[in-house]
Amino acid sequence: MNPFDFTQVLTQAVDELSDCADMKDLFHQHRQGDPLPSGRVLEDVVALCRAVLFPGYYGHSTVNSRTVEYRIGVDVERLYTKLCEQIEAGLCFSRPAGTDEPACAENRAKAAGIAAAFVSRLPGIRRTLATDVEATFLGDPAAVNCGEVILCYPVIKALTNYRVAHELLQLGVPLIPRILTELAHSETGIDIHPAAQIGHHFTIDHGTGVVIGATCIIGNYVKLYQGVTLGAKSFPLDADGHPIKHIPRHPILEDNVIVYSNATILGRITVGRGATIGGNLWVTEDVAPGARLVQR
Amino acid sequence: MNPFDFTQVLTQAVDELSDCADMKDLFHQHRQGDPLPSGRVLEDVVALCRAVLFPGYYGHSTVNSRTVEYRIGVDVERLYTKLCEQIEAGLCFSRPAGTDEPACAENRAKAAGIAAAFVSRLPGIRRTLATDVEATFLGDPAAVNCGEVILCYPVIKALTNYRVAHELLQLGVPLIPRILTELAHSETGIDIHPAAQIGHHFTIDHGTGVVIGATCIIGNYVKLYQGVTLGAKSFPLDADGHPIKHIPRHPILEDNVIVYSNATILGRITVGRGATIGGNLWVTEDVAPGARLVQR
Amino acid sequence: MNPFDFTQVLTQAVDELSDCADMKDLFHQHRQGDPLPSGRVLEDVVALCRAVLFPGYYGHSTVNSRTVEYRIGVDVERLYTKLCEQIEAGLCFSRPAGTDEPACAENRAKAAGIAAAFVSRLPGIRRTLATDVEATFLGDPAAVNCGEVILCYPVIKALTNYRVAHELLQLGVPLIPRILTELAHSETGIDIHPAAQIGHHFTIDHGTGVVIGATCIIGNYVKLYQGVTLGAKSFPLDADGHPIKHIPRHPILEDNVIVYSNATILGRITVGRGATIGGNLWVTEDVAPGARLVQR
Amino acid sequence: MNPFDFTQVLTQAVDELSDCADMKDLFHQHRQGDPLPSGRVLEDVVALCRAVLFPGYYGHSTVNSRTVEYRIGVDVERLYTKLCEQIEAGLCFSRPAGTDEPACAENRAKAAGIAAAFVSRLPGIRRTLATDVEATFLGDPAAVNCGEVILCYPVIKALTNYRVAHELLQLGVPLIPRILTELAHSETGIDIHPAAQIGHHFTIDHGTGVVIGATCIIGNYVKLYQGVTLGAKSFPLDADGHPIKHIPRHPILEDNVIVYSNATILGRITVGRGATIGGNLWVTEDVAPGARLVQR
Amino acid sequence: MNPFDFTQVLTQAVDELSDCADMKDLFHQHRQGDPLPSGRVLEDVVALCRAVLFPGYYGHSTVNSRTVEYRIGVDVERLYTKLCEQIEAGLCFSRPAGTDEPACAENRAKAAGIAAAFVSRLPGIRRTLATDVEATFLGDPAAVNCGEVILCYPVIKALTNYRVAHELLQLGVPLIPRILTELAHSETGIDIHPAAQIGHHFTIDHGTGVVIGATCIIGNYVKLYQGVTLGAKSFPLDADGHPIKHIPRHPILEDNVIVYSNATILGRITVGRGATIGGNLWVTEDVAPGARLVQR
Amino acid sequence: MNPFDFTQVLTQAVDELSDCADMKDLFHQHRQGDPLPSGRVLEDVVALCRAVLFPGYYGHSTVNSRTVEYRIGVDVERLYTKLCEQIEAGLCFSRPAGTDEPACAENRAKAAGIAAAFVSRLPGIRRTLATDVEATFLGDPAAVNCGEVILCYPVIKALTNYRVAHELLQLGVPLIPRILTELAHSETGIDIHPAAQIGHHFTIDHGTGVVIGATCIIGNYVKLYQGVTLGAKSFPLDADGHPIKHIPRHPILEDNVIVYSNATILGRITVGRGATIGGNLWVTEDVAPGARLVQR
Repeated sequence: MNPFDFTQVLTQAVDELSDCADMKDLFHQHRQGDPLPSGRVLEDVVALCRAVLFPGYYGHSTVNSRTVEYRIGVDVERLYTKLCEQIEAGLCFSRPAGTDEPACAENRAKAAGIAAAFVSRLPGIRRTLATDVEATFLGDPAAVNCGEVILCYPVIKALTNYRVAHELLQLGVPLIPRILTELAHSETGIDIHPAAQIGHHFTIDHGTGVVIGATCIIGNYVKLYQGVTLGAKSFPLDADGHPIKHIPRHPILEDNVIVYSNATILGRITVGRGATIGGNLWVTEDVAPGARLVQR
Repeated sequence: MNPFDFTQVLTQAVDELSDCADMKDLFHQHRQGDPLPSGRVLEDVVALCRAVLFPGYYGHSTVNSRTVEYRIGVDVERLYTKLCEQIEAGLCFSRPAGTDEPACAENRAKAAGIAAAFVSRLPGIRRTLATDVEATFLGDPAAVNCGEVILCYPVIKALTNYRVAHELLQLGVPLIPRILTELAHSETGIDIHPAAQIGHHFTIDHGTGVVIGATCIIGNYVKLYQGVTLGAKSFPLDADGHPIKHIPRHPILEDNVIVYSNATILGRITVGRGATIGGNLWVTEDVAPGARLVQR
Repeated sequence: MNPFDFTQVLTQAVDELSDCADMKDLFHQHRQGDPLPSGRVLEDVVALCRAVLFPGYYGHSTVNSRTVEYRIGVDVERLYTKLCEQIEAGLCFSRPAGTDEPACAENRAKAAGIAAAFVSRLPGIRRTLATDVEATFLGDPAAVNCGEVILCYPVIKALTNYRVAHELLQLGVPLIPRILTELAHSETGIDIHPAAQIGHHFTIDHGTGVVIGATCIIGNYVKLYQGVTLGAKSFPLDADGHPIKHIPRHPILEDNVIVYSNATILGRITVGRGATIGGNLWVTEDVAPGARLVQR
Repeated sequence: MNPFDFTQVLTQAVDELSDCADMKDLFHQHRQGDPLPSGRVLEDVVALCRAVLFPGYYGHSTVNSRTVEYRIGVDVERLYTKLCEQIEAGLCFSRPAGTDEPACAENRAKAAGIAAAFVSRLPGIRRTLATDVEATFLGDPAAVNCGEVILCYPVIKALTNYRVAHELLQLGVPLIPRILTELAHSETGIDIHPAAQIGHHFTIDHGTGVVIGATCIIGNYVKLYQGVTLGAKSFPLDADGHPIKHIPRHPILEDNVIVYSNATILGRITVGRGATIGGNLWVTEDVAPGARLVQR
Repeated sequence: MNPFDFTQVLTQAVDELSDCADMKDLFHQHRQGDPLPSGRVLEDVVALCRAVLFPGYYGHSTVNSRTVEYRIGVDVERLYTKLCEQIEAGLCFSRPAGTDEPACAENRAKAAGIAAAFVSRLPGIRRTLATDVEATFLGDPAAVNCGEVILCYPVIKALTNYRVAHELLQLGVPLIPRILTELAHSETGIDIHPAAQIGHHFTIDHGTGVVIGATCIIGNYVKLYQGVTLGAKSFPLDADGHPIKHIPRHPILEDNVIVYSNATILGRITVGRGATIGGNLWVTEDVAPGARLVQR
Repeated sequence: MNPFDFTQVLTQAVDELSDCADMKDLFHQHRQGDPLPSGRVLEDVVALCRAVLFPGYYGHSTVNSRTVEYRIGVDVERLYTKLCEQIEAGLCFSRPAGTDEPACAENRAKAAGIAAAFVSRLPGIRRTLATDVEATFLGDPAAVNCGEVILCYPVIKALTNYRVAHELLQLGVPLIPRILTELAHSETGIDIHPAAQIGHHFTIDHGTGVVIGATCIIGNYVKLYQGVTLGAKSFPLDADGHPIKHIPRHPILEDNVIVYSNATILGRITVGRGATIGGNLWVTEDVAPGARLVQR
């Protein structure tokens, strides 16, 4: 083929690809003035959260006890600005198609309020993450110190994203929380739905392949290994054959449960306090407190 | 050791490391004028494909129904230019060592032809991906809308790369398709060989750890969960003890099959229409249509 | 909420987040003049190692037999400079809190010495990686040639990081080796502890989800598939309930062992020469040489 | 000095430097939500204007007659978005200190209106710039073709910025036009105030050191050489000793005037049609049409 | 104006701006496969030339006597690659409109030959620049050492670009040499036409505003100060009123001439050996050897 | 020429270009561990100085009265870190060739001390620059407000660099001050030697082509226009024919002097208080206080 014929190929392909009627759900029409959800800006949001929550470990910053206030002040302020934009983007993106104009100014104000509320919850998020760091350090003989855990262990990255995303979801932010947890999923192989509820002193070893579903409830002092699935067994369909939303369908893990690698726990069952699930198991029924299941 | 002695260490190490006779297969000698395969340029190719296939979702573009043609026009044109270069790079890179000069100009023309053919197939790729988006949305109660699926779900990213790579492979492009699917593998943990054949309405939930081998044949409306392997059980060796290429050695999944998390299906077996494979299973023999296998 | 009230929210959150007493282990205080461990610089280190070890494949360089010495010379020199900084950063970062000043100049000299020693070991690292490339190519019928293996296969990326990190760890570098292997973990889903000992002609197919623990000993000609765990079964605690460090607790795999996907091998057990472990198995006891375990 | 004492130096300097009372005019307090004037975004604006006005010369774009519409469509759309932001930033930045809230939403709407009006004037700007290109080409024996003039000659860059800035100033945009002409001043050494009025077929040879004041009026077919000043001789002060604004104080150059290098023409004088001013002259009185002034 | 009407404004402006008939010389139509002249790539070319010509001063490289060969080897190789592309771009860009296809492959080969010839002239360029550095250092009491001259003095940057561009022009490269000297013009305010002929031990103090025309001939040991113009007084027009190309119209400065700041020397006159021209003078007639002109 | 012969051209050119004996002063040999002077880092230094001195105008920062302390704290800390490195680089770069090792650690400590001293002088620098801003605003009828002056006027950029560089020079820093003023020279066309002494309320209108020599002494309330040279007339040579350093050779301008565009004032003469020098003049003798010189 003569490369100079490409212009014709191009214009025809562009015509087909630009046919709006044909695209339907695959095309998101932008409304003038709306900010856009941006994976790149949200990576900055994550980086700023990590810098603020673990000063001196993230952010490549040379902080000490006297200068840490400057650094955190600037980072929180930048975090707030980026969050305002992205929360507004999430609100706009999820707006039903026919909605009229004024919603936009409302979204801006609403986003600013949510971002401020989130900022005020950051100290609480740090307190919980401190317990996760402690549990991770105490749970791994190979861990040299807490610094190594914070800098190197994927679980801390995944939990930071999850705890931030969970807080935003609770504050009513659409779409953005899920993008945040997917960023961690891509980075660590750990897939935690932002709607899951997870207690303190939680840890995951190695982590690749872990899945924690949207309606999971996980207690305190729980430990998972790589490849563990806390999933749904099946889900009821509505009259149209579509899955019904918001039905509890993932497991409850009570305090002090341990689940070994590649175990699969499915459905709204309860794994009782202190139970241990062996690796590569397939569990679809309640497990008694203190039980120890292993592969035969 | 005195750091000022480093120059000697350096020159000796460089001498050893530059010894061509010693390197053999580890050294790719470049021929003047050949373009190079570039992971970074191919990331741009992926980004452009996503922007063109899902306008308004990828590409950070503020498109609406009247401006979408401009945007797609520019993106397709840039995609074509980058593809020409990378396809040519693939052709050059895979050229046998002793090949003589004229091949180069031929490769350039051949690459331009392939790139144009690929562009003309983009509308078809979008039509198939639309079915994958639909299957993903309908298959997950946690999915809020198609927009969330397109923006957040790893499976859509992995399938976009796969469907693009598969098309390029069918057009005779060496090396590049595999780099494209490995980019998705690194991003999502989903490893689909570009030579695999996959029908429409395909989806994978969560996805980390999924492996789909080169000679797999997957029907329509198939769903996999995380950690599923569709692999080879063993492979015959030739007289030199090297594995024989191009022998069908991966499973066939017929329409409407579901495979749960961490199941391993190996060898050229057939999983019949509508069968369900439970999690953590090890399957090496044919499965009857409609069968339901679970871990005992 | 009025967005103009945010300044008050900000200052209060900053006050809380800057409270050093409250942060303890989550805050790394920087000492004037110390370099910082940097994931980004270490990504450069990895890129330079790959460029030096596999010239023409990595580094986007147009080398041929007459120019390869220039390129390797420059890259090794840059690698050395970046390593000096990062090794020093690792030494400083891991220094006990109360240590006094002079250590710093010592760390600089020590880091330069280690970096030079590392450079002199690069040819040896390449010789071992050449066997891994060979094993990977011979073990996969889908592999077209060694070039494809080097460019596309995650195992080569993961092993390059591991073999570099292992060498640095043996030279006494703290923290940095673990960051290097975690970079590969994030990129490939393969998690190899830098302290593990691994022979030549080693390969991993696909790789996502593989875990190789710190005290593993792996012989020559060993092959793993995706999702394989070589982990610890349990670990003894000291009087304070903390896990005791440095106890051998991961498996020994002798020469020519093959482990199929998602198998879990736990504890200081020995898998004998030439044994084969089937997929999805849970193995916690010694396996005899030549044995073939499969899921029932 | 002991470097560890720096923290004290730092905190004291920061205290002094943050004292708002002390800073007055040197500190611009930001109001939540206002966009900021950005030299970097305005460089993008300039780049987009150049790409749209001279397609194929700027913007590194591979346009031809069939694809130029896509490219211009995308570039104009991006230009509009960036202009909206920067015009709003200019309006906000120039708002008197005590102004109350609602102005902000008004500024946003006003900025969008101005940006749209500017876009509709782009074809006219191009028509004028085409005459400047022609005059430049015809006026320089060293010019090979119009392409060289557009790509290489500083005057075209300076005039593009000026004509864009002048249009924005006429549309009521504060601050931004001056930043745009200063970008060209820094790039080319040609300093044209955006308020100056300049006819068609205007050109400047070489250009470094040229100054064209705010109230200049320049006819058609005028040519200046490097180092020419069209300035103010003096300006009346008000009762407070401050210069009075908006008084015509710069020269009028009628059609077909030529001014040679380093000539200085000061005050509200008129240089008559077709006059020639020799180099290095100091002119402060009217010059008759057709006159030829030279240094004695 | 309602911002939502912008789409209509946009489409109309795009239609007008895309009208090819209307654009004529302002639109450069790209031919598939041609590389594009790129200011950014040429900035890299300049940076590489500086790094190669003044090792250790430019290129941020940590070279010493044993490693300098690696660094120069790599930089020359990269310089060659970028030059091949840009020379080809210059040849393509300047090709008459109706030229047919085969020219393209020829351009590629021709560009490679020119780039190689240029590389072989680099040592000669360095020898001449060494004399310019010496003249600059000896001519300025404020100069601390040659290092300061090389790193800080604009004249060295301008002369490096000029001597590189002059060599390329002599080798028959269109367009690119002029872009190179304009890069220096923008950076330093010194405007030297690449066709000018300049001897060794040449220097310019400060330099802003200096103009050296295309047909200038400058001897050895010449020194100019800022603001000096060596220009054309007038130029004959052809029958169409267009200036006639290639006529000598700029001054000849013999050896050891000094010209002080802001002097203007116009026309094909000769300033004799050892003459001194005072500042702010306007010179349009021959100056005798050894003469000293000053402003009265 | 066959492009495949290039390797030979390359190796020969590299050999010639790497010949250390041949390069002498053009080659700066690097000593292991020394930081390098970096124009890019110094651009950051300038940007940080501007952000700290004019908060809200530079640094793209959204500061208000309550957050300004965070921002200035972080910026001063970053400024200090970068200055330490660059001051040390300046000290190392200017070290005589044969100097032995220990100097390096001394340079580090010395650099830290100088950087801290500089930081403590920043408030004083701001107080002086505030008078320059005021003089600029009051001296130009076209200036809308001080904000426009700070954001747009080249003189403020040039004076900021000069006042910073002058302070560093006084603190004993070699090389770096000159690079800083050359950055401003390139950006604004205003060339002020860092050793010049300049009083408060100083301003330059437009500025391109202004030169202020190293031994100039300028009083308070002085105003220059574009193209003004304050230079040396001639300078005595030593026995070797080299110019003698450190001799006062540039003009003294007393308080309230005004110099119009393109005037050239040369030699150690005194322009008396309140004198006015007209444009395009050549002045080499003392000017009486209150005198008004104009071109005849």
